[in-house]
Amino acid sequence: MSFDIKNYLDRRKEIVDRALREYLPPDEAETKLHQSIVYSIHPGGKRLRPVLCLAASELICGSHKNALPAACAIEMIHTYSIIHDDLPSMDDDDTRRGKPANHRVFGEAVATLAGDALLTDAFGLMTEKLLEEDVSPGLILRVISVVSKAAGSKGMVLGQAFDLEMDEGEHLLVNEISNTYLMKTAKMIEASVLSGAILAGAGEGELSRLKSYSEKIGIAFQIKDDILDVMGNDDTAQESRERTGAKKHTYVSVMGIQKSKAKVSELTSQAIAELENFPENPNPLREIAIWLREREE
Amino acid sequence: MSFDIKNYLDRRKEIVDRALREYLPPDEAETKLHQSIVYSIHPGGKRLRPVLCLAASELICGSHKNALPAACAIEMIHTYSIIHDDLPSMDDDDTRRGKPANHRVFGEAVATLAGDALLTDAFGLMTEKLLEEDVSPGLILRVISVVSKAAGSKGMVLGQAFDLEMDEGEHLLVNEISNTYLMKTAKMIEASVLSGAILAGAGEGELSRLKSYSEKIGIAFQIKDDILDVMGNDDTAQESRERTGAKKHTYVSVMGIQKSKAKVSELTSQAIAELENFPENPNPLREIAIWLREREE
Repeated sequence: MSFDIKNYLDRRKEIVDRALREYLPPDEAETKLHQSIVYSIHPGGKRLRPVLCLAASELICGSHKNALPAACAIEMIHTYSIIHDDLPSMDDDDTRRGKPANHRVFGEAVATLAGDALLTDAFGLMTEKLLEEDVSPGLILRVISVVSKAAGSKGMVLGQAFDLEMDEGEHLLVNEISNTYLMKTAKMIEASVLSGAILAGAGEGELSRLKSYSEKIGIAFQIKDDILDVMGNDDTAQESRERTGAKKHTYVSVMGIQKSKAKVSELTSQAIAELENFPENPNPLREIAIWLREREE
Repeated sequence: MSFDIKNYLDRRKEIVDRALREYLPPDEAETKLHQSIVYSIHPGGKRLRPVLCLAASELICGSHKNALPAACAIEMIHTYSIIHDDLPSMDDDDTRRGKPANHRVFGEAVATLAGDALLTDAFGLMTEKLLEEDVSPGLILRVISVVSKAAGSKGMVLGQAFDLEMDEGEHLLVNEISNTYLMKTAKMIEASVLSGAILAGAGEGELSRLKSYSEKIGIAFQIKDDILDVMGNDDTAQESRERTGAKKHTYVSVMGIQKSKAKVSELTSQAIAELENFPENPNPLREIAIWLREREE
């Protein structure tokens, strides 16, 4: 029987959505700050990062209960990064996931604070909920360290800073673009996978192969975004760029569509090869890699 | 022999500055993002929060080595909050500590990212450096939880959100103002003191008295700021307000100077009373409380 990836993703997304509603109840947002937080966290998008965290946990035969606090904390960090990214001083996007961007509804100041709060609370939530599940303090600290490194000044935030400079740069080498994608996107995807695996008790060799898997699907994910963007599937991004007159360097603008598509395929195959020595439950991570390559939005 | 508070503060500030230069070396900032980070973290101001962390550790006869990573992480969080606060969409301040605000030098986008990075890295630094000092993982997690709660959506960030609304509010009750000060300022001061004490092995009774001490000096600190502001010692804040035409409600604007001064004295005495049952080294925390009450800048 073939693996039903669509059904798998829907079921895992439901688990993540339920946990996020429990941790950040939409109906209890009494202040403007909390309303701004829940506005962006619910209903959310594909929940790719937390689903990857659960899938990595399954690969090592771990329990969802132990992985969920880390999965949700990572989604909170992803959501903060989106809110700050959309700000007028950054990408200046008016819409996100088909509704007005956070700052268009709550104003720039509250949107900035909502992002700050989500980032801060992510570390507290992870700590407290993992302790409640009796996860060993040493493992929790390892996850906090992995997530902080992936999100901070040598990870996602640095990628965002590089990304800003890509708007301005005259001539960019393809490995500068790949490095930006590694920082901006792949690092948090890697943290998602590693967190799930660490909390399930993965060994060092397993973590090293999963690190390689994640970097590859992370960079492929971002190049695929560029391809979809150019092919007109992402009208919003296109419009926003046309409006501001910005000409952003991307992997596709430098390498062209065909070579970009070939790169996505190559990275996906390399990622899947890293899963070879996992006898238990490799299907979810493998099928997610293929689904990301094939997706049309 | 009387306790030389000036000398104490200078020596402790030196210890903090040295650790921050080690953790965030000013000369190794190669990217614009890292230059923006070190611009705001060095040379810094009074280093009140990390010094409080060290003083609380001394109260419980702990070692500076164990307290320093938490002390510096808290200073990083304080610095991020200042960078974001100064942004045009927030308080719109052009200067900070006698030099141009971060966003005036590096632009709004990089300043936003520098704040994000400092906040994120604070949790990673605390985790890694405390593990290097062989602090027990359980204690490290407790400190992470305390700091995250104090800084997040139910602490400092909520205080900032309340503070924004105070610009607009028609009529404010004095306890609404006190609550804002508790969130905006006292919570992180509390986290500084509690972190130092927790890492030194304080018991629950001791932590409960230190929590009360910190809340009181924290609120007193903010009211004292209002008083200095009105008395013209803080020209920058005054000018900024005059320029924007903003009329901010403060404790002083509602209660008047005399009652505000009496409140600062009352809170300081109550805070000092909480130190009565600490036989070892109560001088630093007591003298810091008095120094904060008496300061003229």
